[in-house]
Formats: sequence, C-alpha cells, structure tokens
Amino acid sequence: MSTVNKTAHPFDKTRLEALLNRRFFYAPAFEIYGGVAGLYDYGPSGSSLQANIINEWRKHFIVEEAMLELDTTIMTPAPVFETSGHVARFADWMVKDSKTGDVLRADHLVKNVLEARLAGDKEARGQAALPKEEEKDKKKKKKAVKAAAVQLSDQVVKDYELTLAQLDNFSGAELGALCRKFDIRNPDTDNEVTEPQQFNLMFASSIGPTGQHPGYLRPETAQGHFLNFSRLLDFNNGRVPFASAQIGRSFRNEISPRAGLLRVREFTMAEIEHYVDPLDKSHVRFKEVRDVALDLLDRNVQFAGSTKPTKMTIGEAVDKGVIANETLGYFMARIYLFLLKVGINPKRLRFRQHMANEMAHYATDCWDAEIENSTGWTECVGCADRAAYDLTVHSNKTGHPLVVRQALKEPIVTEKEVPEFNKKNFGKTFKQDAGAIQKYIESLGEEELLKIKGELAQGSTTVTVDGKPFAVSSELLQIERKTFKQSVREYTPNVIEPSFGLGRILYTLLEHSYWSREQDVERGVLSLPPLVAPTKVLIVPLSAKEEFDPLVQEISAKLRRAGIFSRVDDSNASIGKRYARNDELGTPYGITIDFASVQNRTCTLRERDTMDQRIGPIDEVIATVTALVESEIDWPQACQKLPAYDGVQAIE
Amino acid sequence: MSTVNKTAHPFDKTRLEALLNRRFFYAPAFEIYGGVAGLYDYGPSGSSLQANIINEWRKHFIVEEAMLELDTTIMTPAPVFETSGHVARFADWMVKDSKTGDVLRADHLVKNVLEARLAGDKEARGQAALPKEEEKDKKKKKKAVKAAAVQLSDQVVKDYELTLAQLDNFSGAELGALCRKFDIRNPDTDNEVTEPQQFNLMFASSIGPTGQHPGYLRPETAQGHFLNFSRLLDFNNGRVPFASAQIGRSFRNEISPRAGLLRVREFTMAEIEHYVDPLDKSHVRFKEVRDVALDLLDRNVQFAGSTKPTKMTIGEAVDKGVIANETLGYFMARIYLFLLKVGINPKRLRFRQHMANEMAHYATDCWDAEIENSTGWTECVGCADRAAYDLTVHSNKTGHPLVVRQALKEPIVTEKEVPEFNKKNFGKTFKQDAGAIQKYIESLGEEELLKIKGELAQGSTTVTVDGKPFAVSSELLQIERKTFKQSVREYTPNVIEPSFGLGRILYTLLEHSYWSREQDVERGVLSLPPLVAPTKVLIVPLSAKEEFDPLVQEISAKLRRAGIFSRVDDSNASIGKRYARNDELGTPYGITIDFASVQNRTCTLRERDTMDQRIGPIDEVIATVTALVESEIDWPQACQKLPAYDGVQAIE
Repeated sequence: MSTVNKTAHPFDKTRLEALLNRRFFYAPAFEIYGGVAGLYDYGPSGSSLQANIINEWRKHFIVEEAMLELDTTIMTPAPVFETSGHVARFADWMVKDSKTGDVLRADHLVKNVLEARLAGDKEARGQAALPKEEEKDKKKKKKAVKAAAVQLSDQVVKDYELTLAQLDNFSGAELGALCRKFDIRNPDTDNEVTEPQQFNLMFASSIGPTGQHPGYLRPETAQGHFLNFSRLLDFNNGRVPFASAQIGRSFRNEISPRAGLLRVREFTMAEIEHYVDPLDKSHVRFKEVRDVALDLLDRNVQFAGSTKPTKMTIGEAVDKGVIANETLGYFMARIYLFLLKVGINPKRLRFRQHMANEMAHYATDCWDAEIENSTGWTECVGCADRAAYDLTVHSNKTGHPLVVRQALKEPIVTEKEVPEFNKKNFGKTFKQDAGAIQKYIESLGEEELLKIKGELAQGSTTVTVDGKPFAVSSELLQIERKTFKQSVREYTPNVIEPSFGLGRILYTLLEHSYWSREQDVERGVLSLPPLVAPTKVLIVPLSAKEEFDPLVQEISAKLRRAGIFSRVDDSNASIGKRYARNDELGTPYGITIDFASVQNRTCTLRERDTMDQRIGPIDEVIATVTALVESEIDWPQACQKLPAYDGVQAIE
Repeated sequence: MSTVNKTAHPFDKTRLEALLNRRFFYAPAFEIYGGVAGLYDYGPSGSSLQANIINEWRKHFIVEEAMLELDTTIMTPAPVFETSGHVARFADWMVKDSKTGDVLRADHLVKNVLEARLAGDKEARGQAALPKEEEKDKKKKKKAVKAAAVQLSDQVVKDYELTLAQLDNFSGAELGALCRKFDIRNPDTDNEVTEPQQFNLMFASSIGPTGQHPGYLRPETAQGHFLNFSRLLDFNNGRVPFASAQIGRSFRNEISPRAGLLRVREFTMAEIEHYVDPLDKSHVRFKEVRDVALDLLDRNVQFAGSTKPTKMTIGEAVDKGVIANETLGYFMARIYLFLLKVGINPKRLRFRQHMANEMAHYATDCWDAEIENSTGWTECVGCADRAAYDLTVHSNKTGHPLVVRQALKEPIVTEKEVPEFNKKNFGKTFKQDAGAIQKYIESLGEEELLKIKGELAQGSTTVTVDGKPFAVSSELLQIERKTFKQSVREYTPNVIEPSFGLGRILYTLLEHSYWSREQDVERGVLSLPPLVAPTKVLIVPLSAKEEFDPLVQEISAKLRRAGIFSRVDDSNASIGKRYARNDELGTPYGITIDFASVQNRTCTLRERDTMDQRIGPIDEVIATVTALVESEIDWPQACQKLPAYDGVQAIE
C-alpha cells in the first residue's frame, strides 16, 4: 500500500477554481449572456455532490429524529414578511460613491479598507511576506483592495484591530462614523461615500394578473414552517417537542455578491425548526452528545477583541452557561457530527456566538458554525434560539392561536369570588343601564367583590357607573365563592433553529478535499468521502472494443443493484488520462477491464488517493467496492482481501 | 386472505379532499393569512410522497440512462427570455368584465359557458341524470357555471361540440369572435367581456441593489439546460446523443388558478432535454419499448371533433408516422412505464397530440400524457420535439456556438474555383478601390469565376464595381481550381423534451389511490404503492407502556438499517383507530407489538388494503416486510411465509 503526501504543494485556489470549472461542478449562470453576479448553476458533478449531501442530511436529521418534512412555497405575500419583521429589518447597510453613485456594502467597505491598511503597515514594517500563493491570488482579483506600504502608529493599529473584531456589532450610523473617523473612501475612485442607508435584501414581485398583491421571494424557509405550526402539531398528535424540516431554495438580493458560492443571490438551504417548551429546554438525547468537544468563540471573547476559540465539550459549555440550553447545545453537536461526516476538516471548524447587535431581530441566542477557507472563516450553519418571537407575531397578527395545549397531570385548583346576577329582574330594574352595571361589577377585583359581598349581606350595595349611583339589592346580585380547576396549560413554544447554507458547505468541502499529486502539481485530486462523492465507481474498459461490452454491462448492472452509482468511461483517452480526469471528479474507486478480464473474469480495483491497484475475481471486487462505499471496511482492509496488482506503473 | 371491494362506494371528491387536508398532504399556503390562490404547501405526507416520486424518477430516468443532472437558477435575467420568446409569447388570453373589471381566462370562459349550456340542453331533453356524486360536487363549488335547462337546436349543439373539441387551437381574436358569436358573458355578472388581451405568465422582479437588471422567475427549467449546452457536451466527451435532467421549482403567474394542485402558480417540475442528431432521431434502446401499447389521440382525430383514442404499440405508431420519430416514441413509452410504476391507473392515461396552433412556439411535435381525474383529462407530462429552436436562438443572440462537431469517418472532398490576388501590385494599381474590387471578386459564384478565368487566359478582364469599370490583368489576378477536404461536420442538435408536472402527477395519483371500506364509507384508504407511500411501515405498540419500548426501538433500528422508512404511533388511541389513521396516510404495512411479543418475540404484520393480519417471529416479519416493500414478493407470497393471525377482528 502506498503512502500519500497531500501537502506537497500549498493550496492553490486558482488551480482548484479551474478544476471546478473544467469538470463542471458549477459555473456562472447565463454565462453565454455575460452572467449575473451571485447566480450559479450546478453541473452534473456539483448536482450529484449536492444531492448526496442532502441525502445524508435527510438521514442524519430527518430520519434519525423522525422530523416532519415540509415543502412550502417560495413566493410569499407581503403581509407575512411585514409581520415577521423582514420588510422593516431584513436589510444591509449600503453606501454610495458620492460622485459615481456606485453601491458598496458598508461593513465590507470598512473591513476591506482597514485590512488593506494593516497589510500595508506590516509591509512597511518589513513583516509583509504574504504567502506567495495568496499574493498571486490577490493580483488576479480586479477589485482586491490594495493600500500603500505605509507604517501606522501602534495606537492606530490597535484601533483598527479592535474595530475589525467588533465589526459585526456596528449599526449603520456607527459604520458611517467609522468612514469619517478613518477617512474610508471608495477604493476604486478615492471618492467619499454617502451615509449608510438600509437596502432590503428581499426580491420583490407581484402575484395575480392585476398586480394588486405584492409578494417577496422568501429569504429563508422558516416562515413556511411557522405558518403551518398548528397543522404540524396536530400531525404530531399535539405533542411537543418535535421538529419540522425543509430543504429548499431561498433568495437574497445581495448588494455585493462574491465570486463563487460563498455569497450568492439564490441558494439551497436546509432548515430545522425544533419546537420546545420554554420552561424546559432539556433534550432527551443530550447525553449522547455530552462529550463532543467543539471550538467555541463566545461573544465576550470577541468583544475583548480576540478570535481565539476555546475547546470545550458540549456538556461543559451548557453546564457553565456558555451555551444557553441543552437543546441548542444538542443541535450544535449534531451539526458538528454532520459536517465531519460529509468531509469537513474538524480543525477548520469553529462555533462563533453572535454579538448582541449582530443577532437577527428574532433571536435570543445564536451560534454560527464557521468553516475556514481561503477567504477566511465563513458562516455555513446558523443555530439560533428564536424563542417565541415568530409564532407570537403571526398569532397576534392573524388571530389564529399558535399554541400548545398541554393536559396537566395535576389540575391547578383555584378559588375566587364570582358575581351571580338575577338576570330577569336585574334587566327590569335597571333597563338600559343594566348592561353597563353588570359589566362594571364583573370587572371588579377580588377585594372589591368581597366588600360588596359584605354590603349585600346587609341587604344592598351602591355602585357608581359612569358617575351615576345605582342601588343594587341582594335579590338582584349575590357574590359567591367558587372553585375553578385548570386542567390544560396553554403556551407558545420556543423555537431552536439550525439553518444550513448548503452551497457554502459544498464549496468549503471542495477546498478541504483538494490537493495535488506530489509528483505533478497539475494533477489535482478531490478526496471527497465516498459518502458524498458524485460518482462512486468509474468503470474503465481498456478500450472501446466491443468484446468488453458484456463485462461493462454486467458490472454496471451489478453495481446498480447494489445501489452503488457508477459511470462508464469508454472514451479514447488513455487509461491514465481517464483516471486523472476522475481524480478531479472525486471518484474514489475505479474498476479496470482488460483482456485478462475477458479470459479469467478478473478485474482490477484502484483507490483514488493512493492510486493503489488490487486485483480479484469480478464478483469479489464488486463485493469489496460495495463494502468500501458503504463504509463497512476501509482501504487497508480491502487490501487484505485483494492482492496487489503489479501493472500499476504501466497504466498510470 | 381477504378479498377487497374497492368500488363499493362511488368516488367522493369531497371526502378525499377532507382526508388530504386532515392528514396534511397539502394545504393552502399562508392559510392563516387567508391564503393566496394557486400557492400550496406540502405537509409531511405530501413531502414524503413527492420525495419518493422524485427518487423513483431519478432511478427510472437519470440513473437508468446516465443522464447529466443539473441544478440551475430560478431567477433569470430578462435577455434570456427575450431570446427564447417567452417575453413576447409565454402568455394566456384574458378578458375583463366590461363593468366590474374582473379578469377571466378567455378559453376557460368559453369552455365553461358552452359546457354549461350543453348540460342545460341535456337536462331539457330529459337526458340530464348527472351522476349523483358529481351533482353534489357541483353544488359545493361556489363558482361552478350553471345554465338554465334550455333545449338547443341540433345545429347549435353540433357547433358547440366542435368548438369545444378545437378549443386549444384558437387564437385570442378567434376566442373574442366566439364570445360575440355565442353571446358569452361573465357568468357571475352577466356582463359582456372585453376583447381578449395577452397576459404574460412570468413573475417579474429585478436583480441587484440599483434595480437596473430586470429578471423573471423561470416558467420552466429548460433554458437552464440550453444555456449550459457547451459545458454538458464537453462533460460527455463531445458525444451526442445524451440527455440532461433537472428537478426544480418553476413559476407561472396563472390568471385563474384552480383550487387544488392542478393549476398552481409555483410547482416542482422534472425535465429532460435529450440532444439528438437531426439527421438521425433513432434511439438505441427503442427495441426495448417497441411493444408497449398506448392510447393515442392524434391531432387529426381531434380536428374531426372526436376524443376517442386509438390503442397502438409505440412500434406501430412510429412506423406509421403517427409519432414523428423513434426518440419521441421511446420517451413516450418510458413516461408511460414510469407513471404506471408510481401507481397511475393505465386505463385513465392517454397521450394527446398538440394541435397546430396549440403547440408552444418552439415545438415541432408534441404529445401530452393526460391523466383522467374528477375534473376531466389533465396534462401531466409533455413530450415535445423542440427541434433546434432554443439552441439556435441563444447561439444567434450571444454569438456563442451551441453546436456539435462530429469527426467524419470519410472526409467530404470538394473542388472549387478560388481567386488568387497578387496583393502587392493589386494594391498599388487600384489604390483606394483595391479593397472593394477584391471583395467583389471574392463574392462571385462558380460560374462567374469560370467566365473571368477564361478572359484572364486571354490576358485581362473587366469588372464593374459600384458602377465603375476596372481592367484587371492576369498578372494581378489568377483563378485556380482547388481541392477542399471537410473532416468535421458541425450541426445544431435537436432536442426531445419530456417535461413532468410533479404536483399534477401527485394529485391524480391520490385520486386513483383513494377508496372507502365497503363496511364504512367514512373509512377512507389511500392504496399508494409501497414504492411511493410516505411511510412504509407503522410500528404500533399495544399501549405506551414502557415494557414495549425496547422492542419498538429494536424494530425501528432494524428497519432503518434495511432502508425501510417507518414511524411509531404510540399515541393513546385504540389500535383500530391508529390503523384507520394510517390507512388514510397510505401506509401499506403495520407491525403490532403486544404482550405476546415481549414474551415470545413474535409480532403481527397487517396489510393495509385487505386488513389481513399474519404473525411470526420478529426477525422473520422484518425480513418479509422488507421483501414486500422492495417488491421482491407480493402479499399472497408473504401469506405463504407467515401464518394468519386470529385476533384480527378483535383489534380492528
């Protein structure tokens, strides 16, 4: 078995991007029309990779916890987002170039300019030495912000660094003040910028032929869950906790989308809304994840200007109150386990707590799973405690109760004084005033009723309604002590929301999986785990000769029956070239058919990362590769079953 | 084994709709906000059913034929749909009430009014007798068009019937003429209606912060395929035929959406674009489907006013030219086989050819798979030959070639006369006229060049350019015969497009699956095939007692490992009620755990349609139900493995 050196060459983003483009993982949408920023199409490789990630997500979350899946509409009438607060507040701060009118996102502008100045300072201090690759990368980007190599005072450096650490915490006015304080201008023109203004990120449209119903494309799938809460609760036999889950497209009209999948205008999300009793946010399966250790970056650490996370078990973090409750902690651990399963490098994964002003308008606590990549740390999963916010506002707006009714094991028994009217005579006596007097008496508190009760025991009482006194006799009114039994508790559940940006996970996974062969930097490999690899097995006949067809078809059919997705490459390229192509596609295994296969019914099995080749009878190779793909065995175990094949070097 | 009578009660749409609502297959979106016509949310049952249909679609089409899957964006910049013709022509004809301004779809108005008059005529002639259920159903619909029982002349009846049979063939002006000819008015107000106007069905929005990029939500996924054609061809090693496939959301701002899933404003489609050589539309696997017999309703039959289809094998239909080519026929047969697999009743399935004016602007031939349901025959799958339309228009617009380059086995050799200029002297001689003269000579045809050649053999020729004669000597110009060799053929492929409306298939499937128990019309059953049923197995412990928990968990885990999706119902309802609930959810099998299970490790297996119960050791029951769900055995075979259980009546 060969050993593999995956770090012989430093990470090269340009090469990776060329590979992803060449092998059609994704490409700018409408490319032949010049493209539109922030819109991407997934090709066969990207679609399969995404479908496999989604499939595993369904198993890991929906099937594992019997969540209730939903598929709700994207087009949403405006009143829903008016209630949810999105129309007023789902916005970013933008500034305009004071002369050209170009639009910039305010926080990005501050970040880019200050970072560039700090880099210039380092350069001036002779500490520059950006890694070579990064330097090269920067030159390629037309819009990368560059600052001259000017040394700053130590105090200014400290100021900049603190500002950057707190950046997510600033309001629009504060961002505007920073632009003036630090003289931040549009780097493209050196013009000043305007005061930050809010720009709503929802795409607007209108519904129906007359255009009278304004609508928005949803910026998240969550509202579709909340609006269906009563139906979901009913489906779950009225019991809480339970969760709904949805995988679907959402839209955000970003001010400045990045190149690539990290900030796009249309994306696939997977969201869970877990409904829980606000008085009991424990989780029945918390013990299963108690010992999972995460890198946590809490809000206090950030406020102090640091970005150094603490390694802590979920159990400890909840016990110490770093994470607000068990359910939030449970999902953070489950998110972590999911990301590892699909192939994210745990050393480049941390959980960062939102700072107070950064938090969405609905959240009471929120942690982001951030994944490190060539652009820095990127939020890929949010895990928020939305409390009762959404269900409460929709219920208030529509008058439709979005509550849980829980039968109490022990009814709550209370006693209180209740007025009893002799309705017939009361009406006759007070005529048109009767209603107002009755209403007034019914509105009285315990103490006042007791006072009246005492007076009635003497024969009558006098009440003053609208400044007019009325004498009420004990024949018309009695105050009686009654017992009340409350056997149902009614409450609005709180919502814990893990929310996944699948495109960001997919892209960072591709970065984490990419490397180049030690012997040739041009030979890129995507070491995607078999679980998510677009194709599991490549079937490679030595040539397109017809005599190989029956074996190709037999192996394809047997793999299909075993549920293993394979592709045949019978193109004219050499076997080495075909394997190199599939290393780029991330295909973990290859089966080669040659003349020996036709004679002896043997074939070879190649492993992508090591390029090891083994040989065995066809059915044994199929059984082995099936066990490999289903993670029942690993490659060293496969090597114990199948002897090495000596023709390796000749073929590659 | 029991026998089942599924037709004891006539189909009752009201009961089905109540069931689908109660069991949250789907519900109006934003229901607590009053809903919006044409927008529906799928609940847990509907989402699962849809996911299973999609899963089978992927296997039946994408995996089976190694199609290239895509996932392209919904938001599309306007120029794409300007080129494709959608901005100009993707529209319906609408009329307005001349007084109230209410909007009606013109073809629906004509259809509803004429059908109502024909019904009134039948009633007057004493032939009325609508089936009882249908009558009841009509009363429920607020907007059902009713006409008085007035007898019409035989000629008028004939006129109306011919109009209805040809309805899909009329233009806007013709629909307007029909309204005047037959005095068709808005049935709600009896007011006249305006001339039909086009209403574009695309939802409009704009992209980016400055609003300068108009965009539309795609009304089909197809353009996303076409724009990526070059990349797909490259991925397929430059070979044709091949197919791309995509499953995704599309949007149409319908003028008058129907209640239910049959005409909605947002829907999930599954589309295949199969690229084929226009000179060879044969299909390599056609022989596999040659004998599949379909009900075909071709355009000539419809034009003659009939709606009676002909049963014909695909082989015969292609041979006779009823279906244009093998590839179109191949996909029609594959569509048919897919629909049967998911549970559509083949007796209620026909293929209707589009009439000339009805066909989309891009299509050269088109057949719809129509499925009969309580509202009539509904198009659920379209199968169109779009020819080279889309690739040609996008290529012309963008200048990006969307073509196949095919190496010719035998190069095509041609000879032709070619002018050769002595460039230096030619320029010197004719100065500023040189370019125009050269261009003129190069534009000449074979015959004219031969004439000049003859004159040059005499020393010189005279050409007239822009009315001015120029003498050209043989020193400045020679005409020579040259040989050309063409080794590559370049062509724009044609596209065969099967396009599936998944919501329509899902709804008609629910209608085809629904019936009521003979002994109780209120006990509805959805006989969904195990392949697509949302849940395959219901696990029912006798009660919520803790002693059953270990067995419930064991069986759940074993089924999960076998890939069988199950749910546990440990609610307090009686076992009979729990089974009745799951009959409504379409769950095909139930496993009951009682005290005998705890003692003897046996459990019972119940089949939904027959309500038969069998008994056996837990592992044997799990193995049997796994084989049943995977269609390896049927229920009679299962009954041979497991003995009958006698407690059936007691439990139900």
